[in-house]
Order: sequence, then structure tokens, then C-alpha cells
Amino acid sequence: MNINMNEQYRVLIQCNDEKGLVYKVSTVFYHRNLNIISNHEFVDKTHNKFFMRSVVAGDIDVEDLKQELSNVLPKDTILEVVAPRKKRIVLMATKESHALGDILIRYEAGELDAEIVAVVSNYDLLEPLVSKFGIPFYTVSHVGCERDEHESKVLECLKALGEIDYIVLAKYMRILTSRFVEAYEDKIINIHHSFLPAFIGANPYKQAYERGVKIIGATAHFVNNNLDEGPIIAQNVIHIDHAYSWEDMQRSGKDVEKIVLSKALKLALEDRIFVHANKTVIF
Amino acid sequence: MNINMNEQYRVLIQCNDEKGLVYKVSTVFYHRNLNIISNHEFVDKTHNKFFMRSVVAGDIDVEDLKQELSNVLPKDTILEVVAPRKKRIVLMATKESHALGDILIRYEAGELDAEIVAVVSNYDLLEPLVSKFGIPFYTVSHVGCERDEHESKVLECLKALGEIDYIVLAKYMRILTSRFVEAYEDKIINIHHSFLPAFIGANPYKQAYERGVKIIGATAHFVNNNLDEGPIIAQNVIHIDHAYSWEDMQRSGKDVEKIVLSKALKLALEDRIFVHANKTVIF
Amino acid sequence: MNINMNEQYRVLIQCNDEKGLVYKVSTVFYHRNLNIISNHEFVDKTHNKFFMRSVVAGDIDVEDLKQELSNVLPKDTILEVVAPRKKRIVLMATKESHALGDILIRYEAGELDAEIVAVVSNYDLLEPLVSKFGIPFYTVSHVGCERDEHESKVLECLKALGEIDYIVLAKYMRILTSRFVEAYEDKIINIHHSFLPAFIGANPYKQAYERGVKIIGATAHFVNNNLDEGPIIAQNVIHIDHAYSWEDMQRSGKDVEKIVLSKALKLALEDRIFVHANKTVIF
Amino acid sequence: MNINMNEQYRVLIQCNDEKGLVYKVSTVFYHRNLNIISNHEFVDKTHNKFFMRSVVAGDIDVEDLKQELSNVLPKDTILEVVAPRKKRIVLMATKESHALGDILIRYEAGELDAEIVAVVSNYDLLEPLVSKFGIPFYTVSHVGCERDEHESKVLECLKALGEIDYIVLAKYMRILTSRFVEAYEDKIINIHHSFLPAFIGANPYKQAYERGVKIIGATAHFVNNNLDEGPIIAQNVIHIDHAYSWEDMQRSGKDVEKIVLSKALKLALEDRIFVHANKTVIF
Repeated sequence: MNINMNEQYRVLIQCNDEKGLVYKVSTVFYHRNLNIISNHEFVDKTHNKFFMRSVVAGDIDVEDLKQELSNVLPKDTILEVVAPRKKRIVLMATKESHALGDILIRYEAGELDAEIVAVVSNYDLLEPLVSKFGIPFYTVSHVGCERDEHESKVLECLKALGEIDYIVLAKYMRILTSRFVEAYEDKIINIHHSFLPAFIGANPYKQAYERGVKIIGATAHFVNNNLDEGPIIAQNVIHIDHAYSWEDMQRSGKDVEKIVLSKALKLALEDRIFVHANKTVIF
Repeated sequence: MNINMNEQYRVLIQCNDEKGLVYKVSTVFYHRNLNIISNHEFVDKTHNKFFMRSVVAGDIDVEDLKQELSNVLPKDTILEVVAPRKKRIVLMATKESHALGDILIRYEAGELDAEIVAVVSNYDLLEPLVSKFGIPFYTVSHVGCERDEHESKVLECLKALGEIDYIVLAKYMRILTSRFVEAYEDKIINIHHSFLPAFIGANPYKQAYERGVKIIGATAHFVNNNLDEGPIIAQNVIHIDHAYSWEDMQRSGKDVEKIVLSKALKLALEDRIFVHANKTVIF
Repeated sequence: MNINMNEQYRVLIQCNDEKGLVYKVSTVFYHRNLNIISNHEFVDKTHNKFFMRSVVAGDIDVEDLKQELSNVLPKDTILEVVAPRKKRIVLMATKESHALGDILIRYEAGELDAEIVAVVSNYDLLEPLVSKFGIPFYTVSHVGCERDEHESKVLECLKALGEIDYIVLAKYMRILTSRFVEAYEDKIINIHHSFLPAFIGANPYKQAYERGVKIIGATAHFVNNNLDEGPIIAQNVIHIDHAYSWEDMQRSGKDVEKIVLSKALKLALEDRIFVHANKTVIF
Repeated sequence: MNINMNEQYRVLIQCNDEKGLVYKVSTVFYHRNLNIISNHEFVDKTHNKFFMRSVVAGDIDVEDLKQELSNVLPKDTILEVVAPRKKRIVLMATKESHALGDILIRYEAGELDAEIVAVVSNYDLLEPLVSKFGIPFYTVSHVGCERDEHESKVLECLKALGEIDYIVLAKYMRILTSRFVEAYEDKIINIHHSFLPAFIGANPYKQAYERGVKIIGATAHFVNNNLDEGPIIAQNVIHIDHAYSWEDMQRSGKDVEKIVLSKALKLALEDRIFVHANKTVIF
């Protein structure tokens, strides 16, 4: 049985908007004598969608609470009641260490409410870094492989790691096919090194240099089938000037990339992100 | 009688936190068949205070709704139900026109949900600008006056203008005494030309220049008895470098000042600001 | 004759890079007994171009100084010696007043080292605002005109205004043809209401809303033949979240637009912008 | 002898301003057939000080070049000609790993043009992290010591490490006495976890929480005798709101702290920082 006293649970609701939703949900909480620790609601008027994230504490049986909430909410509701537990994540990287390293340092400091199950890479270059932290490192080389063949090997590798909550692409520089993306829908977080939708695709810093922009940025997003077009989670920018070569942009951009990716990961681990209509609602 | 159909009302609640507040309030809304347009809640755990701002639409009798909410809420509750109306504001200025001008341009464009009743200044320098916009301008000179005497004249001038929702100090460079502040508690919005609490007092840009800071800022806050120590509403900053003289800082700082002040004013006009323990909660 | 004592002149040099340029230029200044007030140099290594902006004071004959500098600089050099004078600018607008108003308030305060010769618009909507400031307003309606015909009328109107240093498109919502752009090459400053190159074209805020970005921005740029693809002068951004409708983005974006456009105008008036290879070098 | 071909040297000049300085310096470079890679000048008019940083390439004898420049520059000139070499730095920390870890990850990636000689701490808590990177870790406990006694031990430890270019206080939470500061004047870089001069001293995040600020920041500065009052090198901020507890501020603030400290360190390693009158000039 799944009963806990005085622990905090996250109730996540996404459904068509209608009158009385807050009333109905808060009535359930009230009659169960639950404490609302925090409460966020949002109505997307364009799509008539209601989003709610409540953190509640008290004597909770997850399945039972879910059932009762389901009874009062509309038919189509996406409902989750998340009990406290460390999420299992896998990091993927290629050659650059800044985004990966930023996560490792946070992990080591106990900042992440997660277990890093493994790091998977198409090179073995980052193995020495990852090994320092006692995390399993798997090299799945793409050399001499067709894209599909390589991806099959990666998928196998991932499958062997068991249940995964999030895959974090910490500068993993290979394009994923729809097969991969569909296997982990809304579970793959990528960092793109530009202020999307500017500079989609390869070498965004070179593109930015050519265009002569005065600001560069980074975008963390869920991965979907269209390259760099998934739901955006977080973005940030830094000011640059004419004196920046594209290599300077790349160097400076790394700081934005790693902070934005780590921020997106934190939001995901705290169940703060809702996805709808290729956009995110973030509480 | 005060009944309107389908208009939006703002319900503002501030009280000691206890279990069931959201349930109780949403129950009242539900049984009155009101639509919740938007809903924000926050619990200040340090002070055990609950804050809620709901925008509701439907058939509303303000006094009646207030009464019913009062019945279910704790004794100490500060409760307001705000019907849609233009707030009456007075601007005060001295010599600089940037913050004042920014508000005037917005006003002319119909951006502000307010009526600017008058501009009051201790100089007549800005009268030509204000007159362009057809707004009454009152010069209350401080020359040859004691501080108290001057302030009495200003207060008289304000009293003659009738009910005032907010007084906006758009770079009004005179210090207000407690008599003035108490007459308009939590109704006076000031823009201070520094990133408070850095550089309290006179000539913050000169202070910033002397200190060699790399960022300057501006702070909009409610005015209380202690100079520059009232509850902060909004702040912003810009990056500078060694090449800025203090006059350059002043010039560049104006852009931050005016945007921050106008933002704070907008928040106030939309009843988004709660004040408690010398801090603001902003929805 | 063009001799002034102790006034500040701006020397602007753009040429192919070669050894000894700083030496040669500073030797000319030294032997003429000129004081260097400030000095900025940059070498664009990609294009092997040297850029220099010196502010010098002393006894200067513009033509004579230009001649001597020409003698020591490479053949292809673009060289200007700018004596202090107010630049003549024309503002163009359509219906929105925020960017225009921001410039007018600065102008009234004496902040702009320029003379606003006129405001030209395809609507008469902003005439009341502009008239307050005593600036000639010309309505050149596009209604019932082909694009070319309308543009011819605008060009005539501009021609009649005499020499123009800069045309500032303060939210002028008509696309200019190459005929127009070529007539005022590198003299037309536009504000685009997005963070270029994201959201080129119409309704960038709607595009941004659809894409679900977490940051919006504005870009001031010189206008060239390709829509929204001219050299970028200045950019800035603000953070937004899922609760912003596209109308909210538009409203909030106005603050960025006006500040960025006014900043670009200031840079232009101070002769701080060099254009090369569709990019700007800004000192 | 100290002759190198085609390597880049940094020429750093700080002296009283007078006419002809650029001419004189560039004449020396020209006659020695040196290539100017980049050139920055600034005149602090308040203090009549001239600052110049030139990166030059060519056939350079450091002492000889220094001598010739000395001959043409004013008597009081502070002059350095820096040949390319890795600077030797020591990191100091206490318990928090974010700023230290950020530097270690950069170091491992070869991003820093420096050798980290050692990490010194008053706790052994970070030894496991530092050891992963093969860097010597020295614990100099303050437990049971007077401040002076503890500092003597730290100074001894540092002395044993040989010549040190910079000491980086990566959240070293002990106050240094003037004896320590004077031993390493303008060589100690600290990160203070507030936007100085706001919230000097202990627990700045608690202070910020109490004050109800809407922005928090971090400041990297050289350490001098007055706590948190040394020359500022770099600052940055993030926006927060009423929902942040001081612990949330602390958590979020770490990201700013580490990026700002690493940025300041990079500027120092590239010899881009001049110190004068308790302020920095940064090229």
C-alpha cells in the first residue's frame, strides 16, 4: 500500500477548461484534510485548456486520491499524483564538457533530486571526466554505422538501463530520428546553442556571426520530430559586440547553455512543466 | 444597486493562512456561478500570511459578494472586491521629463487604465510639456518656504483634487515628511534612481561612479517614513563599464527609471500588488 | 573657411588593414597638435578591415586634415572628418505612438543632438501628438495607391524636406522598395519588433506566441533591400512566460522597441556606427 | 635571452595622461615592425589617467621593448610587457562547491590559460571533489585557532606553493586581515554573493530577503582591506519574486556567482584588468 504521512505530493492536472474546476479540486483536498503547500493554475484561452499544479501534504493514498479527482474532473483529463522519489535520468553528450560538467557538479553537491543512471556518448572523450564521479559511462560509437544502426545501438543501451524519467542531451550532437523521439516522448530535454527559432540547425554561432547579431542565446526544449522545433522550456541570452569572432561567441555561449539546460532539468525534476500544443506551461 | 453582468471584478484577499482558504473562496465563487478568469495564490510561510487575487466574471453585487466572502474568511482578513473603473492618479515631478513623459505618452495612447487628474511640481519647468497633453499643471514652489510649509501647500493642492488612488513621484526630488506619507499610505509610488538598497539618498549615480560598479539600476517602491526604504515593487538594471562618467550613467539610467516606474504603475492600476511586512507580493 | 578652435571633431576611418595604421594616423594628429579625446580601433580579421573612430580637439581645418590623412592611408579608405553640427532627421510612423513618442520626449528635453525636420506617416492618426511638439507632420496616405505610386509620393515629400542625415522608421509599417532604400543607403534606421533573425516578416509577436518562446525582443537595424535583413545596430530582450497572450507580448514588447530604437538613433547621431559586410562595428 | 618570433605579447600601460601618448607608443611598435593585434585605450578624465592595452606580435625582446617604451612614456608609468605563459593560481574555498566546481570543469576542458597549483580550504569537505581532478588539496582548519594564527598557517601554506599570480576565493568564507591582503595586493579575486554595495557583510541573501528586493546579484572584486569594498571586476544579476525564500535566492544565486567569478578570472588571466583609485578599467 502507498500511504505516507505528512509528505508532499504533486498533483498535476491538465484538462479542458470549464467552470468550477478549482472548486472541485480544492473540495477534494479539503475533505481529505490535505494542506495546500502551493497552488498554481493557468487557463490557455486559445486552446481552452486548464492547467493546475498543487503541492499538497497530508495522509495520502496516491491511487485513491487519483480516483477521487478523476471522478470530479472532465473525461479527457491528464492527471498525475507524484509521490516524492528521485527521478532516474540519463545524460547524453558528445565532446564538449561544459553542460555535462555543470550537471555533474550539481549532482555531486546533492543539488539534483535525481539519480544519474549513466552517461551515454558517441565518443569516449568524456569518459575520464564522468568516471571521476563514479557514474557509468557508455560509448556507443557512430563510426562506420548508418544513422539507424547507430541509433538502434543507443536505444538498446538505454533499454538496458531500465526505467528512465528524462534523457538530457547535454550537447549531444547527433540528430535523433522519429523512432527515438517517439520512444521517449516529452522525456528528452535538449540544449540548442541559439536563441530559437533563430539559427535552427548546424553551427548556430557561425550563423549568428555571419548575421552580425548583438545578442546570442541558448534554448532548452523537449525534442520532437522536427529538428529544434520542440516545446521550449527555458531560454536566456548574453550581449555581444562586433569584436566577437564566432569562436568567442561559442566560448561565451557555453555559460548560457549550461545554466539554461540545468534550469530546464530542475523544472522537469520538480514536475513544473506541462506540455500542450507544442508549448510549455511552467509553474 | 451595484449589479453588473459579465464584467470582470478583482477579488483581493490577504489574511492569516489556514487550511481550506482556497476551498472556501472557490466554493463562494462556484455557488454564485462566477467564472474564474485568473487565479493567483501565495503563502508567505515566514509570516504565515495567505494572499489571493482572483479575477472573476459574472453577475456580481460587490457588497453582497464581499459580505459572503467575509463570512468564510478569518477575522483579520483584508478583503477588496474591485469593480472595473479608471483609477484617479496624480503625478508629481521636479525638473526631469523622462519618467513623466513616458507616462504621458502611454496615457495619450490609451495604454493606462487611469485618469491623470493633475501634475504637481515644485517648478514650472515641465508645464509646457504637460500642457500639450491637456492635463492641469500646478506649480507649488518650495522657494522661500520651510519644508513643512511647502508640504502643507502641496497637501492642500492635492486635497483640492478630490479622491486620489495613487500619487506617482515621477522624479519628484523633494523628501516627504511622515505627515505626507501617512496621508497617502501605500498610495505613493516613487522611482529611485539606484538599485536599492545600494546608494540610498542623494546623487546615487555619483555614488555609483565613485564605487566603480559595473551595473546600475532603478527601483520603484511605495514610499514610507524611511527614505528609500519602502516596499519594493519593481527593479531593473543595465550593464555599464569604466568609460561611463556619472553623467553618462545618469543619462543611461533614465531609460531604466522610466520603464521601471511605468511598470510599477501598471501593476498598481491592475491591483496586482499586495503589501505586507514592508515587502510586496505581486501577481 | 572651416577652422574652429578647441571643438571636438570625429575622425572616422574604414580601410583595408595593414601594419602601421595607428602609427600613421596618430602621427598626423600629433604633428597637428591635436588632443585625442577618445580613440577606438578594431580589426575585422575575417574581412581584413580596419576601423577607427577618434574624437580629437584642437585647431582643425576639416578639408586639410582629411587631405593629410588621405595621403597616409590606403587608397580604398572611407574617411570622414565630422565637424560638430546637429544632424537633420525625419521620423516615419504609422499608427503606434510608443517609439515615436519616446523620441519626441527626448527631443523636447534636448537629449538628441539632432533637428527633427518632420514626421511623415501614411495615416493622420499621430498628427495630434506630433503637433503638440511643433514638428511638421505630413500624411501621405497609401489608400487607393499602388505601392510604387505611394512610395513616389513619400519620396517627393522627403525630397522637399532637403538634406536628410537619417530617416528613422518609428514603427512605419510599410515595406520599402529597393528604389527607396537605395536613395537613402545606410541612412534608414528601422525597429523590427522581434529578436532578428527570429520572426522575420509580419506579426512577429503572433509568430512568437505560436512558437512558445520564453523571451521576446526587438532589433534596430539599417534597412537594405532584403526585408529585415539589414545590418543590426542594437537588440534587446525581455523574459516572458506562458501566461502572455500575443497581445501581452505586443504591449510589453513596446518598451523594448522604443528603448532599442532610441539607442540606435543615439549611436547614429554620435557617428559611432560603421557598416561593412552587412554588419555593424559600433564604438 | 628572451626573443620570440610571431608570438603575441601584451603591453600594459598606465600613466598620467598627456598629449601624444598613442603617437609615442605606436611609433615604438612601428619602428620595431610589430603587428598590433588589438589596441584599447581609455582616459579617466577625473583622475587624468591614461590606460592602454596593446596585443602585439613580432620579434620581441621583452626587456628591450620595455626599456624603449619607458624612455618615451612619463616618469610615473606602470608598464608591463607580458610574454605568453600560463599563470599560476591557487583556489580557496570553504564548503560550497559550485564556484570551485565551475572552475575545475573549465580547467579540465583546457579553457583556462592557467595552472591551478592547489586548492586551500579551512574544511576537508571539498577534498573528494578536488582530488578527482588531480589537484593538490590542503586543509588548513581554523578550528581552535585565533584568526591571526589560522591566517599565518594559510600564508605559510601559500608561501610553500611558490610564486602565485592570482588567489581565487571561490566562496572562501573567512575574512582576511590586512596582513594577508597586503601580501597579495590586487592578486586576490573574491566573489561576493550580492550586488555590491548592497548587502555588504554576512548573509547577503537573508538581507535581500528581508528587504524584499526583486533582483539579486553577485560581484567579483579584488580584495582590499575593507570588507567587500575592493575594486569591482564583474557583476551580474537575476530577477526574483516574492515566492523566493532566502534559501531559494541562495540556490539561484549560485549560478550567478560562479559565472561572474569565472568571468573575472578569465579577464585577469588575459591581463585585461587595470586597477586605479579603487576602480577597474577593463578592456
